[in-house]
Amino acid sequence: MRAVSFPRVVVAVACLAALPVAATAATPPRPASPADVLAAAPADAWRRPDPALTLLMELRGGGRVVIELAPAFAQKHVAQVTRLVHAGWYDGLAVGRLQDNYVAQWGDTDGTRPLPEGMSKTVVAEFSRPSLRGLSFTKLVDGDVYARVAGYAEGWPVAYDKPGGPAWLAHCYGMVGAGRDLDPDSGGAGELYAVIGHAPRHLDLNVTLLGRVLTGIEALSSLPRGTEALGFYRTPEQRAPIERVRMLAQLPEAERPLVEVLRTDTPTFRAWVDARRNRRDDFFLRSAGRVDLCNAMPPVRTVPR
Amino acid sequence: MRAVSFPRVVVAVACLAALPVAATAATPPRPASPADVLAAAPADAWRRPDPALTLLMELRGGGRVVIELAPAFAQKHVAQVTRLVHAGWYDGLAVGRLQDNYVAQWGDTDGTRPLPEGMSKTVVAEFSRPSLRGLSFTKLVDGDVYARVAGYAEGWPVAYDKPGGPAWLAHCYGMVGAGRDLDPDSGGAGELYAVIGHAPRHLDLNVTLLGRVLTGIEALSSLPRGTEALGFYRTPEQRAPIERVRMLAQLPEAERPLVEVLRTDTPTFRAWVDARRNRRDDFFLRSAGRVDLCNAMPPVRTVPR
Repeated sequence: MRAVSFPRVVVAVACLAALPVAATAATPPRPASPADVLAAAPADAWRRPDPALTLLMELRGGGRVVIELAPAFAQKHVAQVTRLVHAGWYDGLAVGRLQDNYVAQWGDTDGTRPLPEGMSKTVVAEFSRPSLRGLSFTKLVDGDVYARVAGYAEGWPVAYDKPGGPAWLAHCYGMVGAGRDLDPDSGGAGELYAVIGHAPRHLDLNVTLLGRVLTGIEALSSLPRGTEALGFYRTPEQRAPIERVRMLAQLPEAERPLVEVLRTDTPTFRAWVDARRNRRDDFFLRSAGRVDLCNAMPPVRTVPR
Repeated sequence: MRAVSFPRVVVAVACLAALPVAATAATPPRPASPADVLAAAPADAWRRPDPALTLLMELRGGGRVVIELAPAFAQKHVAQVTRLVHAGWYDGLAVGRLQDNYVAQWGDTDGTRPLPEGMSKTVVAEFSRPSLRGLSFTKLVDGDVYARVAGYAEGWPVAYDKPGGPAWLAHCYGMVGAGRDLDPDSGGAGELYAVIGHAPRHLDLNVTLLGRVLTGIEALSSLPRGTEALGFYRTPEQRAPIERVRMLAQLPEAERPLVEVLRTDTPTFRAWVDARRNRRDDFFLRSAGRVDLCNAMPPVRTVPR
């Protein structure tokens, strides 16, 4: 049972005992691994997402996917999704597309389910916001292939090219967007997708991202891959049915999954990113010294009731 | 059936017809999408991996995974894997670990199967090679978070910090490595893993990479995730059994999967990378202008018999 990862073994510091002076004082504390940082996080380093802005999607077979929505970046799309959820509109639809190393996509794959009275199929594209003004921002110093600056704004992976200019959500693993046709405003949340592979950052600024899978992505990422073009399933029977989607606020409190996300405006988050950047676990012989935006997504934990 | 990707629609060029002169000559050819570039590739832009250095792993249930080995980067590990395959050593073992957004790992999970007579459990770590000397290299101009230079050496994603200095394989989606314990030489190929998530580049230079899944990664990436620490399965019954592993050269020619990889030292590959970098498909409103090493892995195709 080899690790390829993170074994935790106490470092032998016997060599330090041979030092002539102040061996005790000189013994450095064992450097923190990412897991150590999280274990030592104070309670207020974690936030509990707003139940009115977090949804639970239940798949047939027991999969439970918790998704936090991002009104700070996609207000209109979040409003659209929330209205559809409250109308029970996604219930009985299915995951209709699974493209390996790319996306899982669900909703009205055939485009045949009418929207609730008074709702429009088009929502004005929200590919970016004018700036990060008003949001706390933790900048990564590591560089980014796709943008001048990358970092985390109130829990979300973001990028921008010009200080004070437009900023956008990044297509990291687990991010959720609104599938669209060629018309940029056609992503009316009738179909949503989650990234299940290497970050397809070329989609940034081309599709509206509106949230992130906090827990349960494995219920999507482990589905059979569709065999048709773009990973669509060949027959409707191959799709994974959605039992129901509800905002957490709609559920009795005792039934709400208790999920918490590490605040990105905390010393704990900065220490955790640094521990990801400079791996000090004994397994690592060489520390990268850098970390990619999508390799340091804000940690999530489930709190036992 | 929305796309989030690559729809192909003919561009209306009616406006050009109104130009007063040489409308025909002035009509620009429609810019090439990545798929267009591949469709136009000459036959000799593709290479067929050496059957003596390519293996077929068959999982119970029909999964067929084709892996090309990389002796130019991990000669000793490739020799070890090849000997184990010829001995039928992997047959009847299983995929014992599935960690979401990270790795699928297979082989002797319990560490109880003796190696064939005369073989050692340790193989000297091959985390890098002294330089790229002797290999064709196609450099990416896009930058890389984890190294000074990234690009493709004879089909493999590689990185280095110093020109003429050590170069290493990068942990991109589908890359295959030798799981190890804390001892860097303990990766004796008794357990192998494939990357099935966002590139864990912090593993570069810490584990020996020895190959790449060319086809069939979905047979690994769609397996249920293990629920124990690091994604190990809780019980042996949950593991996905390996029926057999054979080098393609061991199979009758008619039974060998015919897989081809785009040569990375060709104008076609450079054009394809550029088409990935500057998406001209009608779906894209904005081209990233950059591409990440792991987002431009050399294309693979299966040739019908």
